[in-house]
Amino acid sequence: MTLDKEQLLKDYHLRLQEIFQLDCIGALLDWDQQVNLPAKGAQSRAEQLELMSLLAHNRQTCKEFQGLVNALGDQLDTLSSDDQVNVRESKYQLEKSLKLPETFIAQKSRARSAAYVAWIKARKANDFALVKDELQTNISLSRQEANYLGYEETPYDALLDNYEPGSKLSIIKGPLFALADELKEILPGVLKATKSAPPFGNHFEIPQQKALNERVARDLGYDFEGGRMDIAPHPFMTTLGAHDKRITTRYDQSDYLSSLLTAIHEVGHALYEQGLPSEHAGTPRGNTISLSIHESQSRIWENIVGRSKPFAKYLLGLLGEYFPEEAARASVDHIWHRLNSVRPSLIRVEADEVTYSLHVVIRMILEEEVINQGLDVEELPTRWNELYQQYLEVEVPDDANGVLQDVHWYGVGMGYFPTYALGNLYSTIMMEKITENVTEIDQKVSNGNFVEILAWLRKNVHQIGMTLRGPELAEKISGDKLSHAPFIKYIKGKFEL
Amino acid sequence: MTLDKEQLLKDYHLRLQEIFQLDCIGALLDWDQQVNLPAKGAQSRAEQLELMSLLAHNRQTCKEFQGLVNALGDQLDTLSSDDQVNVRESKYQLEKSLKLPETFIAQKSRARSAAYVAWIKARKANDFALVKDELQTNISLSRQEANYLGYEETPYDALLDNYEPGSKLSIIKGPLFALADELKEILPGVLKATKSAPPFGNHFEIPQQKALNERVARDLGYDFEGGRMDIAPHPFMTTLGAHDKRITTRYDQSDYLSSLLTAIHEVGHALYEQGLPSEHAGTPRGNTISLSIHESQSRIWENIVGRSKPFAKYLLGLLGEYFPEEAARASVDHIWHRLNSVRPSLIRVEADEVTYSLHVVIRMILEEEVINQGLDVEELPTRWNELYQQYLEVEVPDDANGVLQDVHWYGVGMGYFPTYALGNLYSTIMMEKITENVTEIDQKVSNGNFVEILAWLRKNVHQIGMTLRGPELAEKISGDKLSHAPFIKYIKGKFEL
Repeated sequence: MTLDKEQLLKDYHLRLQEIFQLDCIGALLDWDQQVNLPAKGAQSRAEQLELMSLLAHNRQTCKEFQGLVNALGDQLDTLSSDDQVNVRESKYQLEKSLKLPETFIAQKSRARSAAYVAWIKARKANDFALVKDELQTNISLSRQEANYLGYEETPYDALLDNYEPGSKLSIIKGPLFALADELKEILPGVLKATKSAPPFGNHFEIPQQKALNERVARDLGYDFEGGRMDIAPHPFMTTLGAHDKRITTRYDQSDYLSSLLTAIHEVGHALYEQGLPSEHAGTPRGNTISLSIHESQSRIWENIVGRSKPFAKYLLGLLGEYFPEEAARASVDHIWHRLNSVRPSLIRVEADEVTYSLHVVIRMILEEEVINQGLDVEELPTRWNELYQQYLEVEVPDDANGVLQDVHWYGVGMGYFPTYALGNLYSTIMMEKITENVTEIDQKVSNGNFVEILAWLRKNVHQIGMTLRGPELAEKISGDKLSHAPFIKYIKGKFEL
Repeated sequence: MTLDKEQLLKDYHLRLQEIFQLDCIGALLDWDQQVNLPAKGAQSRAEQLELMSLLAHNRQTCKEFQGLVNALGDQLDTLSSDDQVNVRESKYQLEKSLKLPETFIAQKSRARSAAYVAWIKARKANDFALVKDELQTNISLSRQEANYLGYEETPYDALLDNYEPGSKLSIIKGPLFALADELKEILPGVLKATKSAPPFGNHFEIPQQKALNERVARDLGYDFEGGRMDIAPHPFMTTLGAHDKRITTRYDQSDYLSSLLTAIHEVGHALYEQGLPSEHAGTPRGNTISLSIHESQSRIWENIVGRSKPFAKYLLGLLGEYFPEEAARASVDHIWHRLNSVRPSLIRVEADEVTYSLHVVIRMILEEEVINQGLDVEELPTRWNELYQQYLEVEVPDDANGVLQDVHWYGVGMGYFPTYALGNLYSTIMMEKITENVTEIDQKVSNGNFVEILAWLRKNVHQIGMTLRGPELAEKISGDKLSHAPFIKYIKGKFEL
């Protein structure tokens, strides 16, 4: 019996490693596509990505793997605590996968490809009508998916669970609505506390920007022996192996800060990945918890640390070495105001850290209305514009600047957006504890000493792997239910409201 | 019956494409390993490479694919001429693969890994004894492999066929021995015709070298929309997709020519790949013939074109733009002498185009003695040194500069070396015809106009795919059996002997 279990565990872990390597190979195909691919290589690459995704899917759902997971699931209590996590998560994902018929998965994938293509055209033509039908199909399929997957409270929960396992609308809606309401309330004060700090018009050569980005990445704790930094039009972080966590950024020669902040954001993601318990690489025990916890890591470094006054001081210290002309005119105050330009706007990806969550809450409201309340697709643009008026008090001039701006509903799926705002909440929940535990944190950040901040995250977040779900981790850290209060407190403190 | 054949063909081609994509994915893993991989990524990458190689091998030898190939092979005459080539080659490769038991393949792979590791140590320690036993195992396995594969004349033929399908010692030995003898004879004359042309000591910045390499690559006809040029310690060309043929080079800041010639060599390989009939990509009809025909393409561009006087003139014209300091002192004559420094030496990979084939013939002699005549491994170093004395009149000081210099016998296999010298022969056989067909070729090359040379190769070599075997192609081009005469004539002409 014991021997039997040993063999089951051995086979199970072999398969986990195989699935992990297949995923990593798929990630390399994607990384190379975004970083290197010559124009004419696109078609072969699409075929290769499809092939690897099929191979990985087959391995994840094949009868043999099912058998192993179920057999181990039946004796969960007898397993090591690490393997309890592994088998629990494998079982959870497997059961979800098996609820969706193969034909449905193929249908969904085709519908999304079609909607993606139509969305590209519609956005270019600034005409929602060109993608309305495809979006309607996507939404019908999402509702169908929710039915296949099942849910305790509302259909939207089933979709949210795809990106944020264990979460529900009833858990996140309260804090996110409260967040939106309070943000709206304090926004005028924030606007008064910030001022325009236009750049001096210097030119920033890319090799110098790259050197500065690398210097900062190293100072933050990114290990270049276990990763690299390249250029991609849409920056991202990706895992190509247990010790190969790569980041990308892009460059704007008129502004070193834009590239640097993007790099810091991706470094934040990579520090999480590099801090996972590597002895458990390729297993749930050694994997990241969820999109929102991942996002919390990028936001801590990009926003809470990276847009702080001590960080501006640290940056000013570096500027002399990399951009002496800029250093000659810059000041801590000028850098800080450049890092913290806040204004209500139309486009989520360009939003500042204060208004960002408002963009997200608008999308969550719309997703709930569409999925749970049957809002007609025809109504989406008008409803979108109403909500922008309500929360951000901006007039949406057209669909390209409105309902057509994000790819998610067309090419990804509904239920994803809330993870961005949850990431913001989690980041401030964690930062409260970091500030309690790291003495003289401002001075350390000014000096480019981030060791203790990272050490706290390593111990309390990274090393956890998937032992806990996102809401559980937040509760363990804060001793309280998910709340918007730390975020509001952070913003009020920062802008001295 | 017809419908049945259509379905067989459809399934067969689907599988060919799948195998092709798996090979390309493996090639990407390898490309990235050589170009990008961070230090700590090595272990995961090794696992990924092994996994992909296993997946590709399984697809190539599985019962379903066997069934398709055999069923189509039974009605070969009824297939299109393209599919006759495809099925013939699939059958040929499949039959070879199936002759080797799985356990033997695994054993061979393990033995080579062990020998590779021992070779690294032995070469570092300059001590052949440290790898003797592992080499003995490799050789015993090679003999066993020849027995499994079968042969008409000698066991060595079976190994040669792995790299040069359809070739035999009895076809290549005569021309290669004659080549070696005549080269040895004319070498003193060549040495008299060349003179030392030391570099001027200028410094060559890498971005400028890269720009020059790219300029030359473009002029030669390399399509950067279907490839890229990166840096790798051991430069190579690789196929990552039907329209993604990448090259690599390396840089020496004290000498722009070394990087440029390496780039031209790899461009030669890539022009072959980019010139294949792309409508047949992923099938034998759209694949390259053999290693030696591949090598002929790199040698034509690197040596025959790239080390010619007209090319030196073309280069001098470019220097002003990329390296004005060098241009100020250089002359066509100086560049030509730098491109054509000939001297008998110890190391194959550093050899000039005249003595290169002598290094290869020495290795072919040794391989024949080991495989066909049972030469004892213990004798290899002494025999190596004797042959270097005989053919190149150089004294081999130690094993690192002798029998331990190349990885092939330790980590690859016997039978590979002759393809290098065959590539040289094929290149001059082709160039004779090109010179007959392209009028005012010297003037065109001087002007950086390579269009007609490439057009001839496209039509007479690249577009052929695997329709012909190497020796057949050479015979079709020259109207004669494989001969060393064109190479000797080329060398004599070049050095005015």
